[in-house]
Amino acid sequence: VDTIHHTCQWGAAHRYGDDPTQTGMARLALSDDDFRVRQWFATETQKLGCDLKVDKMGNMFARRAGALGSKSPMTAMGSHLDTQPRGGRYDGILGVVSAVEVLRTLHENNYKTQYDVGVVNWTNEEGARFPKSMVSSGVWAGEIPLEAAWGLADIFDPNVTIKSELERHGFVGEISCSSDASTGFPLGAHFELHIEQGPILEESGKKVGVVQGAQAYRWLTITIIGRDAHTGTTPLKSRKDPLLAAAKMIASSNAIAKKLGALASTGVLKIPPNSSTNTLASQVSFTLDIRHPKDEVVAQLYNECLESFKEIAQEDGKGVELKYTLDTDSPAVQFNKDCIRAVEEAATSTVGAENIIPIVSGAGHDSVYTSKRCPTAMIFVPCKEGVSHNPEEYCSPEDCAIGAQTLLEAVLRYDQF
Amino acid sequence: VDTIHHTCQWGAAHRYGDDPTQTGMARLALSDDDFRVRQWFATETQKLGCDLKVDKMGNMFARRAGALGSKSPMTAMGSHLDTQPRGGRYDGILGVVSAVEVLRTLHENNYKTQYDVGVVNWTNEEGARFPKSMVSSGVWAGEIPLEAAWGLADIFDPNVTIKSELERHGFVGEISCSSDASTGFPLGAHFELHIEQGPILEESGKKVGVVQGAQAYRWLTITIIGRDAHTGTTPLKSRKDPLLAAAKMIASSNAIAKKLGALASTGVLKIPPNSSTNTLASQVSFTLDIRHPKDEVVAQLYNECLESFKEIAQEDGKGVELKYTLDTDSPAVQFNKDCIRAVEEAATSTVGAENIIPIVSGAGHDSVYTSKRCPTAMIFVPCKEGVSHNPEEYCSPEDCAIGAQTLLEAVLRYDQF
Ligand SMILES: NC(=O)NCCC(=O)O
Ligand SMILES: NC(=O)NCCC(=O)O
Repeated sequence: VDTIHHTCQWGAAHRYGDDPTQTGMARLALSDDDFRVRQWFATETQKLGCDLKVDKMGNMFARRAGALGSKSPMTAMGSHLDTQPRGGRYDGILGVVSAVEVLRTLHENNYKTQYDVGVVNWTNEEGARFPKSMVSSGVWAGEIPLEAAWGLADIFDPNVTIKSELERHGFVGEISCSSDASTGFPLGAHFELHIEQGPILEESGKKVGVVQGAQAYRWLTITIIGRDAHTGTTPLKSRKDPLLAAAKMIASSNAIAKKLGALASTGVLKIPPNSSTNTLASQVSFTLDIRHPKDEVVAQLYNECLESFKEIAQEDGKGVELKYTLDTDSPAVQFNKDCIRAVEEAATSTVGAENIIPIVSGAGHDSVYTSKRCPTAMIFVPCKEGVSHNPEEYCSPEDCAIGAQTLLEAVLRYDQF
Repeated sequence: VDTIHHTCQWGAAHRYGDDPTQTGMARLALSDDDFRVRQWFATETQKLGCDLKVDKMGNMFARRAGALGSKSPMTAMGSHLDTQPRGGRYDGILGVVSAVEVLRTLHENNYKTQYDVGVVNWTNEEGARFPKSMVSSGVWAGEIPLEAAWGLADIFDPNVTIKSELERHGFVGEISCSSDASTGFPLGAHFELHIEQGPILEESGKKVGVVQGAQAYRWLTITIIGRDAHTGTTPLKSRKDPLLAAAKMIASSNAIAKKLGALASTGVLKIPPNSSTNTLASQVSFTLDIRHPKDEVVAQLYNECLESFKEIAQEDGKGVELKYTLDTDSPAVQFNKDCIRAVEEAATSTVGAENIIPIVSGAGHDSVYTSKRCPTAMIFVPCKEGVSHNPEEYCSPEDCAIGAQTLLEAVLRYDQF
């Protein structure tokens, strides 16, 4: 936990209490603060005897040699050090920092694993700055083309891309971003410790979630084009009001999600900066994030939302023009049986069978993509009131320690399988 | 018309065609461009033999002496030179520039009016930058306290106020902003030429609208406080989602307005700048602009909207907190019978009785406030497709000339009454 707070000096923001650790984080992917914590990661893992590789997406791989030599791919513990713009101190950070602590334990005890063991820091997991979540594990898994990922622009600054930020910091690595054994960095397995980010562990009074997989989700950007006009002199029937249409669409997507027992959420809504009280906006865009554990339900939600949006676009005044793009499509994922077993046994040994629970992840994680190329599982620990993507996100020191211990044991068990 | 385009060099923006005059305007109140055009106004009216006074709100009064001496207050032609951020070349500008042209005609013909005649340029009529429309004619009329007006902050920059901008340009005038004869600048009458900003003249094929009064309107700012949370892991029932609540409120205000045959519009919606696709916003605020020719209907619309907003604030998840302020309250106005008659006779003489129509203004104008302290009336000319608050706002040179001619004749007729 001390290491977490130590690394949170880079990007600390949004103070909510008097204690030095009572701030949230704003460490956006590939920002200067992100590079400060990457520097810490490099120094620290090298001190622990690891070899460090960086790939074309800036993913960082720290590798500690095992007894069998480096012919087999390493068993990885991975997560991310980037945060939301109003994020907390645990989301992603807990997984990487705990993994470094696992390496420290192995190092200080001179423990020899069979296989190589190491840590991965994945780039731009949050999708907050460059709006495609888990984009770099996605490229690594061969699911997202490198060029498309490189070309992703900052959501608020079209002139800055992932590639331009990697280049600015001299961080376009030597190896290819791929699981290919000859050019990239294959992994033997991927274990990820993460805060749950939801209320299930806390509500059920359990300590560790043995993650079985992750729900499906899609991200869309909806753009609505209307016409600026005077609010006082333009009759309702003559209007092309994009903000009214967007408002009805957001309300409608929520109603459809509710009906299907799914989730629909809008996090970003943009109107032109030169807006005023007595002028209808000319254009509005907003994001839509839809989720459900079943791929079919997400597909149905997607179709019903778009149908409803098309109707709404015609409903008022002279209608508005509707455009949309599908930015992320992440199908439901089932994790690997052996990895799940390693986590389950490790968690049972750490907190006892009565304190663990199988769980499906509501959020996407880099493990969603690694699971396509190597055996993968995740460990969840509780966070206060299930709140994350919020400065006050909190995981108790005890729960952080339980998570790290479970991660250590799961990796060692998997090393023996 | 040449003078209009000449003065539009200061603040031209939003090009939509190849001709030099095919741009809109972004001359926000008290911006550097606004001061450039004020400089033009001062020089030009002084060249035409006027005496210039500036009051504490930066309102500019140019006065041309009449035969009876300066004991009686002057007959004013007034409007505004500030524009919307995405505004056009006619809204307000036509009224001031035509008034200067009327002065030029009197000057060049050595015409002696009985009473003093002059022009007023009112500050921040649009309420676009400092979100209270007609604020400076409101202070002049004694309806808005000077300190409240001075303290109004830029809608996007809380550190800049009307007072700080007036001081920055050394434009806090000598005389008090008041119609009081001993300390301020009383007016004998106020005539305002303006584009209609609506479709009535064009649809009815008429050339001049004889404005009888203006409809009532209110501006509100609604603020909704929720809690930032993860879009993928936070069940709908655990959310405090302010953007969803705002969306439902905007849709609801539109439905209530439709039912009452009134207008409800949202021009500005703000979410925190550090938003992201997979995080619910912590707070949202938006403006609401409600209008109807009858005060009672605006009051009813206001009450029904607030009741509906309170319900919506409780409807989803764990509810959200709702706050609101009433920023502008402009009751319906009836203009002065004699002034209306002067306009009607002038318009009839200019275009013939078959080309004029009585009309009620949908927008607020400085004349709404002057009418509380002196006889007032307005002249409307058509604008293309009724579109204003839009860069492509257009009034033909012929219609501009008709407007200026009607303004001249109305003032001269009133001078004789
Ligand atoms: N864990 C996490 O917040 N990942 C970002 C992708 C998502 O929104 O699920
Ligand atoms: N004419 C005009 O646009 N005035 C601003 C006040 C209003 O919104 O009606």
